[in-house]
Amino acid sequence: MLPLSSNVILPEMSFRIEKDTMGQVQVPSDKYWGAQTERSRNNFKIGPSASMPLDVVYGFAFLKKAAAYANAELGVLAQEKRDLIAQVCDEILEGKLDDQFPLVIWQTGSGTQSNMNVNEVIANRAHEIAGKKIGEGEKTIQPNDDVNKSQSSNDTFPTGMHIAAYKKIVETTIPGITQLRDTLDKKSKEFANVVKIGRTHLMDATPLTLGQEFSGYVSQLDHGLKALNNTLDHLSELALGGTAVGTGLNTPKGYDVLVAKYIAEFTGMPFRTAENKFEALAAHDAIVESHGALKQLAVSLNKIANDIRMMASGPRSGIGEIIIPANEPGSSIMPGKVNPTQCEAMTMVCAQVMGNDVAISVGGTQGHYELNVFKPMMAANILQSAQLIGDACVSFDVNCAAGIEPNHEVIKELLNNSLMLVTALNTKIGYYKAAEIANTAHKNGTTLKEEAINLGYVSAEDYDEWVKPADMVGSLK
Amino acid sequence: MLPLSSNVILPEMSFRIEKDTMGQVQVPSDKYWGAQTERSRNNFKIGPSASMPLDVVYGFAFLKKAAAYANAELGVLAQEKRDLIAQVCDEILEGKLDDQFPLVIWQTGSGTQSNMNVNEVIANRAHEIAGKKIGEGEKTIQPNDDVNKSQSSNDTFPTGMHIAAYKKIVETTIPGITQLRDTLDKKSKEFANVVKIGRTHLMDATPLTLGQEFSGYVSQLDHGLKALNNTLDHLSELALGGTAVGTGLNTPKGYDVLVAKYIAEFTGMPFRTAENKFEALAAHDAIVESHGALKQLAVSLNKIANDIRMMASGPRSGIGEIIIPANEPGSSIMPGKVNPTQCEAMTMVCAQVMGNDVAISVGGTQGHYELNVFKPMMAANILQSAQLIGDACVSFDVNCAAGIEPNHEVIKELLNNSLMLVTALNTKIGYYKAAEIANTAHKNGTTLKEEAINLGYVSAEDYDEWVKPADMVGSLK
Amino acid sequence: MLPLSSNVILPEMSFRIEKDTMGQVQVPSDKYWGAQTERSRNNFKIGPSASMPLDVVYGFAFLKKAAAYANAELGVLAQEKRDLIAQVCDEILEGKLDDQFPLVIWQTGSGTQSNMNVNEVIANRAHEIAGKKIGEGEKTIQPNDDVNKSQSSNDTFPTGMHIAAYKKIVETTIPGITQLRDTLDKKSKEFANVVKIGRTHLMDATPLTLGQEFSGYVSQLDHGLKALNNTLDHLSELALGGTAVGTGLNTPKGYDVLVAKYIAEFTGMPFRTAENKFEALAAHDAIVESHGALKQLAVSLNKIANDIRMMASGPRSGIGEIIIPANEPGSSIMPGKVNPTQCEAMTMVCAQVMGNDVAISVGGTQGHYELNVFKPMMAANILQSAQLIGDACVSFDVNCAAGIEPNHEVIKELLNNSLMLVTALNTKIGYYKAAEIANTAHKNGTTLKEEAINLGYVSAEDYDEWVKPADMVGSLK
Amino acid sequence: MLPLSSNVILPEMSFRIEKDTMGQVQVPSDKYWGAQTERSRNNFKIGPSASMPLDVVYGFAFLKKAAAYANAELGVLAQEKRDLIAQVCDEILEGKLDDQFPLVIWQTGSGTQSNMNVNEVIANRAHEIAGKKIGEGEKTIQPNDDVNKSQSSNDTFPTGMHIAAYKKIVETTIPGITQLRDTLDKKSKEFANVVKIGRTHLMDATPLTLGQEFSGYVSQLDHGLKALNNTLDHLSELALGGTAVGTGLNTPKGYDVLVAKYIAEFTGMPFRTAENKFEALAAHDAIVESHGALKQLAVSLNKIANDIRMMASGPRSGIGEIIIPANEPGSSIMPGKVNPTQCEAMTMVCAQVMGNDVAISVGGTQGHYELNVFKPMMAANILQSAQLIGDACVSFDVNCAAGIEPNHEVIKELLNNSLMLVTALNTKIGYYKAAEIANTAHKNGTTLKEEAINLGYVSAEDYDEWVKPADMVGSLK
Repeated sequence: MLPLSSNVILPEMSFRIEKDTMGQVQVPSDKYWGAQTERSRNNFKIGPSASMPLDVVYGFAFLKKAAAYANAELGVLAQEKRDLIAQVCDEILEGKLDDQFPLVIWQTGSGTQSNMNVNEVIANRAHEIAGKKIGEGEKTIQPNDDVNKSQSSNDTFPTGMHIAAYKKIVETTIPGITQLRDTLDKKSKEFANVVKIGRTHLMDATPLTLGQEFSGYVSQLDHGLKALNNTLDHLSELALGGTAVGTGLNTPKGYDVLVAKYIAEFTGMPFRTAENKFEALAAHDAIVESHGALKQLAVSLNKIANDIRMMASGPRSGIGEIIIPANEPGSSIMPGKVNPTQCEAMTMVCAQVMGNDVAISVGGTQGHYELNVFKPMMAANILQSAQLIGDACVSFDVNCAAGIEPNHEVIKELLNNSLMLVTALNTKIGYYKAAEIANTAHKNGTTLKEEAINLGYVSAEDYDEWVKPADMVGSLK
Repeated sequence: MLPLSSNVILPEMSFRIEKDTMGQVQVPSDKYWGAQTERSRNNFKIGPSASMPLDVVYGFAFLKKAAAYANAELGVLAQEKRDLIAQVCDEILEGKLDDQFPLVIWQTGSGTQSNMNVNEVIANRAHEIAGKKIGEGEKTIQPNDDVNKSQSSNDTFPTGMHIAAYKKIVETTIPGITQLRDTLDKKSKEFANVVKIGRTHLMDATPLTLGQEFSGYVSQLDHGLKALNNTLDHLSELALGGTAVGTGLNTPKGYDVLVAKYIAEFTGMPFRTAENKFEALAAHDAIVESHGALKQLAVSLNKIANDIRMMASGPRSGIGEIIIPANEPGSSIMPGKVNPTQCEAMTMVCAQVMGNDVAISVGGTQGHYELNVFKPMMAANILQSAQLIGDACVSFDVNCAAGIEPNHEVIKELLNNSLMLVTALNTKIGYYKAAEIANTAHKNGTTLKEEAINLGYVSAEDYDEWVKPADMVGSLK
Repeated sequence: MLPLSSNVILPEMSFRIEKDTMGQVQVPSDKYWGAQTERSRNNFKIGPSASMPLDVVYGFAFLKKAAAYANAELGVLAQEKRDLIAQVCDEILEGKLDDQFPLVIWQTGSGTQSNMNVNEVIANRAHEIAGKKIGEGEKTIQPNDDVNKSQSSNDTFPTGMHIAAYKKIVETTIPGITQLRDTLDKKSKEFANVVKIGRTHLMDATPLTLGQEFSGYVSQLDHGLKALNNTLDHLSELALGGTAVGTGLNTPKGYDVLVAKYIAEFTGMPFRTAENKFEALAAHDAIVESHGALKQLAVSLNKIANDIRMMASGPRSGIGEIIIPANEPGSSIMPGKVNPTQCEAMTMVCAQVMGNDVAISVGGTQGHYELNVFKPMMAANILQSAQLIGDACVSFDVNCAAGIEPNHEVIKELLNNSLMLVTALNTKIGYYKAAEIANTAHKNGTTLKEEAINLGYVSAEDYDEWVKPADMVGSLK
Repeated sequence: MLPLSSNVILPEMSFRIEKDTMGQVQVPSDKYWGAQTERSRNNFKIGPSASMPLDVVYGFAFLKKAAAYANAELGVLAQEKRDLIAQVCDEILEGKLDDQFPLVIWQTGSGTQSNMNVNEVIANRAHEIAGKKIGEGEKTIQPNDDVNKSQSSNDTFPTGMHIAAYKKIVETTIPGITQLRDTLDKKSKEFANVVKIGRTHLMDATPLTLGQEFSGYVSQLDHGLKALNNTLDHLSELALGGTAVGTGLNTPKGYDVLVAKYIAEFTGMPFRTAENKFEALAAHDAIVESHGALKQLAVSLNKIANDIRMMASGPRSGIGEIIIPANEPGSSIMPGKVNPTQCEAMTMVCAQVMGNDVAISVGGTQGHYELNVFKPMMAANILQSAQLIGDACVSFDVNCAAGIEPNHEVIKELLNNSLMLVTALNTKIGYYKAAEIANTAHKNGTTLKEEAINLGYVSAEDYDEWVKPADMVGSLK
């Protein structure tokens, strides 16, 4: 029996017959995909269609082209076939075939069906480029024997997801974070002399400068970027050449190194063949590792965004030490309200990344024998996290960080009120007497200076000499 | 200065001017949305556009219509305005305006901009229905003063997300799980007499029936469904009527109860006004609670799907006790391979749901004072989890569970080989002697019966009488 | 070869020989445990010794006693044996044998070794009670054949952990939360007339009372307690009677129901036999379910504790609307500093519980066939979470919540400054004009009233009549 | 009123009076701790007492000694005081004072009370060493002014936890993992020629060697160790010298660099002063980063342990390709049963580490302004994870991995049965014909060779020449 597409078939839709090793399947005639793609569409109606990230498809396009070149160079693929394959891969990379990849994340865990989707689209489109009509005659290029030559889903999918994740991190995440980092660094320098009250436990503490506060954010992002960069080496290892189980069965000698060289050349990124192909198929620790660094950055960014919204709180009944840009009306009911919306978008992204980290870790634990079958889910999560962090940093930078200004009046008032300036007296009169001064001023609602003198511990002159906020911020950069 | 849309503006695109309390904004003239939607589009370019789930928009459509009815009934909105608003809400619910909601999840954490997106679309579309031209003349319906009357983003967004999540769980998740549960229950009964080896620690253990094994799965899902149902009461509480901070400022008396009644009527679901509006705005524990149950179901489904793939493993070098449907060619390199792909899709979904649970919990912890500002992220995650579990259960049911058959030959062979049948002797000769029999048979590669006799602990007749696998499965259902 | 204890053997230590089905083992002569306990001690040197929670051991004591009673009643255990077993169980429950359970969590995942630890201790101690010398003569009571009669580790461990978790939740968690809830409720009523500024997005919003704010906390805990109570039914199901794989092999008829009845009687709690024993051994969704509710409560408590520390921040440069007890010097360097330390302990507990939830969920997913082998880890985590939440609530209540007082002066000042009081004008002059007033006052640093009059939108009399904070909090309870 | 210890006071207990800036406190007279420790004991009765890891206390001992040396060298502490402090620190490091640190993790989030506990114990014990009686006379050494000189809890606690975590990772985790890694590598080489069936999707796949399979595990651990080592640089940064808020108030010039030098000298580890002290107090991304690597290792170890238990499953009705040591009787009811208990302990540890990672990440996100107050929780979790992984690796190595042997008979049988050997024919006759052979053999229950010949695709000679399992494993190492 001919399996029919179970999708709704409008009367005017037309189909052609495609087949695979299990038999024939009806496929919409205006699509390049073949039997296995169609089977997957019908068998995995889970969530919105086409949820498999296009970035993974593009990763496949790089590797299919590289495989064609390596195969041709090693004498197992005709040059004309190589060129046809490469031409379609280029079309994919130009975004011309984006609507040819309808599959979902929630398919087979090896991503076999997305590999076959790419193979089928390349084969049929190549047939067309070769001047033939799809569905007629012997395929010019065979999806399995040609496009997939020297490959398996088991090594292509991890290769595709490494390419996609690496590119996304290098092209979106790192530049986004760096842009925000540079703005914070600039602000840190601008605010180098803005002395303000420090807060520990959310409670008044000894002073520091606003610039010092921001330097901590810069340091967090610098450490996070370093941690993320540390993971790229593992991510640059490619499984390709391992084929079905990591042994490289059905690949010509030297293929794994050569194909990685071509991928490096086509992407302009330092990919190389994985030292151990068994690890590269059966485990995706490289994804776990890189996402771990993304999660660390989410932790950092959450701290930064949260601080900024607390410092900007008010305008009249909060902390109000800094002013952030007013980008939108903040409330549909409260007129004139302005909110720290970029901080909110950022912290929502951070929460999502923390969740994605668990999904990836759970997937990572569950490799069985020669294959981990959580690949599409892991790929989708790392790509989402990398994109969201990069985008959110740019959005936060442009729409918030770049416009942060100190509210000098508020800063000065809150600083001078603080009882924690008493700490400067520790080295003069000891912790216990200093505490007595602070406690008394707190109880009486008076100033430190009044009580310091009243208690007879410090003279007015000494007090003024010893307790200078600006002098309390200077031991370290 | 007139803020321009920073999106690429094609020469032929035309714009109209919309304004809000911050000034004027250019908006594409073929769209119903207004100034605040456009600001949000420009200020939050984070991830793919229009990522805010349409289910949330539909939730808003229900509540905006209900608010119009309640406002009219309480004398604060003209009946014509009510009807215009209701008419647009119906259009939204019919899916006619799906392309009018371009905003992303990663916006302000109160979802204010999506609330305003809905308000603006309703106002402009109502203007058009009233026979006017958008952008010309006084708006027939004001987005803030009419559509948003007696409302705030702070109570509408949580109301919208409760409606959306409740509907999704009741209409997609529970039916999907129930369908799978019923199939497993049917299989459990079909397999009631298929005696097989039990396995604990993955090691051979005493026998049970395949039906008993499946009854455990049914029990898991029954408990999970009960747990999920237990959470619906909290989820049915609606924040609407709390307005800005939970006090219900600017609402007419009786409004909160009445608007919930209308929502219940329009949705056909037992929604009611939240007992405490402060909780309903500042915390989203109901989302945390319902997602906790979804996560529990993910844990259960992971166990079930994992068992099934292990039992179906092979075909020749695995366990192979059951046969699952062969739906697709399993490998792009290994001819004739068939894989447990539905199990893989399911377990990937489970991992995702476990990750989403962390994202939601993190968001849930971070309410501040009168408002939790992780609303869109929490809404998106629970809707995704609810959809994926429902869909994956149906997919798993149709394409796998319904077709599961025992491989009687394998089951029989593995059962009869087992050394753990010796356990039946415990009550006859004691644990120590029984262990000696099993250990000896294991060491010598012989049968239990041989060694039982050799060791002189049991006669052949007694052995046959005492060690009957089918008698070892019967004490409990 | 005689396996020697690999622990350091001091010259003066004395040993006796114990044996099991694998041979002989040296055991410290002053301990009641036997061969299998000693093997486990040597084979699992992971983390600190004796990490297996004593609560689990006590759970075992209840069930061993109940099993002895049920076995005796059903005619498979002599009454003298029953009484000896029961007597040792009582000693365990009195805490007299706490030092006899040296095993760690990180042992076999079925908890077999802890089951055997209990069996061995009961057998040897019973031997002693019976007037014999341990290690001499036939054991009066056999660990496997008597103490473990009609049992397996596979049904005893989950039974023990259900008893332990249920008791902990009912005796520690719920009372602790309830105590805090009641204090917050009392405060909510005390503060019913303290009108203060509301805050959304951390920004100034319309007013509410401090009592309303606290009522939200009460509502969170009420919902959380309800959710936790909802899970107890599943947790009250006991696996006992399922023995090795759930079939109840080697149990007398009626045993499962009877033994649960005895456990209910001995504990005074409504335990009952699990409806499906296969689920009860192979999955621990009941633990996942109850811990999900604990996690929900952690989410709630985090919100509450975080709000309180933000509201108490200062004393001079923060929000300072409430005063919390000063329990300890807050700083080793800043004299006179007082910190919200109870809030910090609470939020650390919440973070831990969120982590434990992931550990439990991961463990829950990984049951294989007839047995989940993450039992001790799951037990330890739920017991820790249940204990910490209960204890932290009491600590927070006694040392913080009970002493919270409003700082009326600060509250009044922050309230009257707020620009968001303008929201009261929405229904009088519309959202747009109200926004203009607020924006102008914000820009000019003036009051709402001044600008309302300047702009000509409201007369002084109307302003005073319309904008009354105390009237803005009253629509809802 | 004199605050009394609320702990149970036995009649014979004796107390002395200690005081701090808040007043007097009764302290057990046989303890060295002082007022603040006692307050903390009474105010934080959360979970078992003394849960603060001793490793953190030892970290403090290193830093207190180093601070004393740096202070003395910089002229702000007398040499006799330095020597007294150093002497007590040495006693702490020798474990002589372990019972003097009764505080819990769940205290103030800065760990101030544990810092004061150390300060108080050092001061009182120094008083005693100096020949005085505790509680009598002026303290020879002041806890705040001397022991804590140039320090704050805010920089000491993070310093102590970095020292503790670094040491634990370097002394326990890395050696443990390395030991297991080396055994697996040795096994990989031993098993280099054991050709076996591969499995992907748990289904039969093309062959590989058992040695190759193990090489994947080695590669996972190598990558994990590299990732863990990458994090040590961040962890080696010490906050000390930042004091209260990161500015280094009340420290002599050069102190931060000098004190780190002394810590490096005393520990023999490459600690250095943090480049940015604001980050080092307000964020604990270094802990997040190192724990991320521990979590990655947990993911890897879970995969390895899970594979091994699946491969060892049986003994007769599972996979049974390898034999693992039988260390304990596996079942209290099933005689002769042996279980993969080390795999179970390991995977439970992995689940715990995954949970701990979430706890740490949640804590890491919640720094506020100048201080993160989740320090003790974060410290406890990373120390637990580092210990458990290290210990579990050693336990797994000694009791399982080192004894793994192939079951050659089973391996050979399962290999030769496999239909996936057909893959070798792809390059000879194409994927489609190869699939037909495999499908036919599967359907008919015949061998590949029979069907290859029947179908007329391959001659018997060619089949034997082309399909050689041992030749299918060789392309890659």
